[in-house]
Amino acid sequence: MACINTDLALEAREAVGEIPGVEMEQEKKGETLVTRVHVVTPMGARRMGKPIGRYVTIENEELSRAETLRDREMGGIIAEELRALLGEEQDGCAMVAGLGNRELTPDSLGPRVTGEILVSRHIKENMPDFLDERVRSVCAVSPGVMGVTGIDTGELLRAAVESVRPACLIAVDSLAARSRRRILGTVQLSDAGVVPGSGVGNHRTALTRETLGLPVVAIGVPMVVRAAVIGREALETALNSIVRREGNETPMARRIRGYLDEETLEELSQEDASMRGFVVTPVSIDEAVRNVATLVAEGINRCLQPELKYEEIQAML
Amino acid sequence: MACINTDLALEAREAVGEIPGVEMEQEKKGETLVTRVHVVTPMGARRMGKPIGRYVTIENEELSRAETLRDREMGGIIAEELRALLGEEQDGCAMVAGLGNRELTPDSLGPRVTGEILVSRHIKENMPDFLDERVRSVCAVSPGVMGVTGIDTGELLRAAVESVRPACLIAVDSLAARSRRRILGTVQLSDAGVVPGSGVGNHRTALTRETLGLPVVAIGVPMVVRAAVIGREALETALNSIVRREGNETPMARRIRGYLDEETLEELSQEDASMRGFVVTPVSIDEAVRNVATLVAEGINRCLQPELKYEEIQAML
Amino acid sequence: MACINTDLALEAREAVGEIPGVEMEQEKKGETLVTRVHVVTPMGARRMGKPIGRYVTIENEELSRAETLRDREMGGIIAEELRALLGEEQDGCAMVAGLGNRELTPDSLGPRVTGEILVSRHIKENMPDFLDERVRSVCAVSPGVMGVTGIDTGELLRAAVESVRPACLIAVDSLAARSRRRILGTVQLSDAGVVPGSGVGNHRTALTRETLGLPVVAIGVPMVVRAAVIGREALETALNSIVRREGNETPMARRIRGYLDEETLEELSQEDASMRGFVVTPVSIDEAVRNVATLVAEGINRCLQPELKYEEIQAML
Amino acid sequence: MACINTDLALEAREAVGEIPGVEMEQEKKGETLVTRVHVVTPMGARRMGKPIGRYVTIENEELSRAETLRDREMGGIIAEELRALLGEEQDGCAMVAGLGNRELTPDSLGPRVTGEILVSRHIKENMPDFLDERVRSVCAVSPGVMGVTGIDTGELLRAAVESVRPACLIAVDSLAARSRRRILGTVQLSDAGVVPGSGVGNHRTALTRETLGLPVVAIGVPMVVRAAVIGREALETALNSIVRREGNETPMARRIRGYLDEETLEELSQEDASMRGFVVTPVSIDEAVRNVATLVAEGINRCLQPELKYEEIQAML
Repeated sequence: MACINTDLALEAREAVGEIPGVEMEQEKKGETLVTRVHVVTPMGARRMGKPIGRYVTIENEELSRAETLRDREMGGIIAEELRALLGEEQDGCAMVAGLGNRELTPDSLGPRVTGEILVSRHIKENMPDFLDERVRSVCAVSPGVMGVTGIDTGELLRAAVESVRPACLIAVDSLAARSRRRILGTVQLSDAGVVPGSGVGNHRTALTRETLGLPVVAIGVPMVVRAAVIGREALETALNSIVRREGNETPMARRIRGYLDEETLEELSQEDASMRGFVVTPVSIDEAVRNVATLVAEGINRCLQPELKYEEIQAML
Repeated sequence: MACINTDLALEAREAVGEIPGVEMEQEKKGETLVTRVHVVTPMGARRMGKPIGRYVTIENEELSRAETLRDREMGGIIAEELRALLGEEQDGCAMVAGLGNRELTPDSLGPRVTGEILVSRHIKENMPDFLDERVRSVCAVSPGVMGVTGIDTGELLRAAVESVRPACLIAVDSLAARSRRRILGTVQLSDAGVVPGSGVGNHRTALTRETLGLPVVAIGVPMVVRAAVIGREALETALNSIVRREGNETPMARRIRGYLDEETLEELSQEDASMRGFVVTPVSIDEAVRNVATLVAEGINRCLQPELKYEEIQAML
Repeated sequence: MACINTDLALEAREAVGEIPGVEMEQEKKGETLVTRVHVVTPMGARRMGKPIGRYVTIENEELSRAETLRDREMGGIIAEELRALLGEEQDGCAMVAGLGNRELTPDSLGPRVTGEILVSRHIKENMPDFLDERVRSVCAVSPGVMGVTGIDTGELLRAAVESVRPACLIAVDSLAARSRRRILGTVQLSDAGVVPGSGVGNHRTALTRETLGLPVVAIGVPMVVRAAVIGREALETALNSIVRREGNETPMARRIRGYLDEETLEELSQEDASMRGFVVTPVSIDEAVRNVATLVAEGINRCLQPELKYEEIQAML
Repeated sequence: MACINTDLALEAREAVGEIPGVEMEQEKKGETLVTRVHVVTPMGARRMGKPIGRYVTIENEELSRAETLRDREMGGIIAEELRALLGEEQDGCAMVAGLGNRELTPDSLGPRVTGEILVSRHIKENMPDFLDERVRSVCAVSPGVMGVTGIDTGELLRAAVESVRPACLIAVDSLAARSRRRILGTVQLSDAGVVPGSGVGNHRTALTRETLGLPVVAIGVPMVVRAAVIGREALETALNSIVRREGNETPMARRIRGYLDEETLEELSQEDASMRGFVVTPVSIDEAVRNVATLVAEGINRCLQPELKYEEIQAML
């Protein structure tokens, strides 16, 4: 899992409001809301706390339900948006990297997704005659997390990239959001690069189009909200309620409102250091993450294999 | 998982303070704090929101660590306290019931524990000559949860009890606490009876010494704090901080303190209905629950097999 | 897992040949072969080593492939054959029992299937207004195996049946076959009753229409071939090859052929007692059993919910 | 899993008998038999079907039992033999590689072992002050299998080795044996190099002391016997029995004995091509592999951390 407060550019944008250097547009695809945030300038990047790049969020409350999987619309939307971010028509091997820890449910999205990717590179290289030529070469790695391997994930991933020399890299990771309703309800795609395991330790290796020399797209789904964020949220609701109870225009209400700005709320809710290491998740996260992993894998497979029908991809898995 | 706010009598007692009809004593065993709450009168039960009975909590911050498992002291404490609650020296088959849903990590304690119980009833009944005669007859069931079976768990468990006719029943379940530090850090034992899946639906079957005609002890470990409780906790911390900032004796501080009583905090933090279905857990719950399940199973095995050494029990598992 | 050599009536019939008191018919449904063996008389039962009753096998080499799951034809065939065995149009609650040990891959079919059954009894009984009235009441239990619970599985299941009083019982279990190609390639349905954990211990409780007073159908899929059977198979192939090498009509060939009858082969291959406890499975059994469990659950769900479309069932799971 | 018939040099030696260029010695350590086979010459290597190098097998029937884990003797023996093969006193980071497929029980040994290795490299490099200085730097990778990643395992592992530049490489893998009693009953250590996924495809990358420039030790445990081998074993038993029945010195017996040499048996038992893809395993392999993985991890941890006591290692895991 990445960043401290939110890994979603959309939420960062909601928090800072409209600012110069950051563009945003929204589009409704059926029941699904697609938001495109473009961090254009260094100033915008600083204010947002996110590197320059494009961030696409795909929101749908039903995201993690088995039904959503079955109707295939969502997989198609993910495939489309991913294709747009990868850019120009591509050839050559695509590498999918599943970041995170398979053994920790809320961090297991990446390794689960790689387990459902249609890999073909080994057949394409060793026994090309056995493979339908419409199938694009794809490989998939799950480098593990630093706490388990003892090796910076970026370092391992870079070694794999340098050895395999793929045409593009798609990295899948679990994210943290600020809002509970986005847990397992939003997919974010971004071409701003990948910083595996950010926040843990200080030596991190950023994997970007610049450092690797190939298109890099990160795909993530928020799996948790940090407990500290929940505290902040509850505090805001409660202070607003106190304001109402005191009567909006009383001196007390005004005074309380003084505590209601972004920064002070943050400060007040972070005093409780013991919140660290705790996260808020839906009770049913185990099942939800299985469904979402299948969905994201479907999106990636359909994007990388444009000449295959959905049924053909499934049959080859 | 059971109750709305806390399943721990200790926390209910902390919330209501000292009241008539409820007795409490504490004992330190090494690094471990054992608290015995005795709800004696119907009035005490009403005030506490807990049935009449004895509740023992065993608290140790290291509870879920692999090291704690290895030194065996904690297993011994659980065995001792369990024996005290089961009462008079026993003969006959003991039944251990693992309540909860094996597929939901924070609800999986019960079924995990039953998987590590030394069961012997089938050998004792069918091939007694193959069994060391010091081994007591024990059986273990995991009836599953109503959402998965379609059957009230209490109904299934009662059917098993009536068919097997054990001498005592020990039911293990996951609990919810109010305080994060008690998650996976506290074991509660109680002779007040078991209400499987309380809170879900309204037809519940209480399993008690009275309804079953045999000693019934419930063992539970808090696995989560409900998200709403976290909000309340964060709010309390924040309001106290506002009081300090305003200056303790200012009119504003006094006014704020008015919101700091138990009931109002509860009210304010429950306004956010969307918290339902969300729980707060440690990131590493998957591993912690494995360790705690092994620990609780050790405690039960050592209690039920007083004539076997720890090593003998392990060797028979 | 049940019987010593084969749990499939079809294979028993193949071994004994055509005998009085046993009827057999075959039907081709697309790529799938449906064989119906009817053991009619006690004499037939003795010769077959199978109780009187109807046994339907559904054979398809692709049974365990993800593709088979997706085209839904096979689920429909299972539903149809199950309905025929259950008999007259039914009302009232159906109970599905998953026999076997969830923790042992080749014995895990039953518990996996129950995890995918659409259960509704608890809603039907407690909150009928929340349930589409076309949904039939269904419940599902996984009593566990005797080695883990210490209780005869039949005893636990009978207790559940007597408490819930369902209108019919469908019991799912892992089977052993004689032929490797039937592993995970055949579904057997039978109305001859269920003997959970046959072969283990001697006290077993048969669950039949007669003992329970309600229709009982067993559904099973062979997951393994016992190692001893493989030995027999290899021996037969080798002796035939020796016969060919020696020249069909030489005295040596004739002598060898003397060893090629059923009984002698059995004898010769059973001399190696050390084969016990070993089974033959496909390398990829873990994945195959997941697919087959989903398939069998689909068949049961579609049989028990004739008024719901496949998509409606899936949406409610 | 590796080789066609047996991955154990000990079994290859048993099959070919005493030959020039291959040395063998045995030592009894308590109940455990340690056999050291040294393939010295190219001729010996050809006859054995094994590369030049030292092969140590540690055999104990109780290997996979939980009790064996508890008494720690076996872990000590593995540590000792591993140290002898790694050679001269070492400094610098050790890399442990878990080969095989975590999702396939009989191929999951490697990834399971890496999950229990004490990794320290990341702390040693980034926060050395937080680490007891007696702890040696260790890292652990699980590159996955080619069928899942699309990348030759040797290629991925070599990339990791070249990036991390460890002082030595220890590779753990599941093996196939010829004899059922060696399944989960034998540990083999070898300094002859590692050929991940041998047998699958033809492009394989051997990882040896020569190609990598550092000590390489492979550790493996047989998890299966290929079904074809079982057939051969059954055939041998049966033919011997036929010889006895015919009367040892009759012409028929002598003729049959003609089929009893190694090569013919192999031929006869390999006629059944359908055996491919099937393996023979103990019914309880799921549990056994967990125990053996913990045991092998203990051996590696104790070897790599000679300055730490067993308890200290466990406490740091």
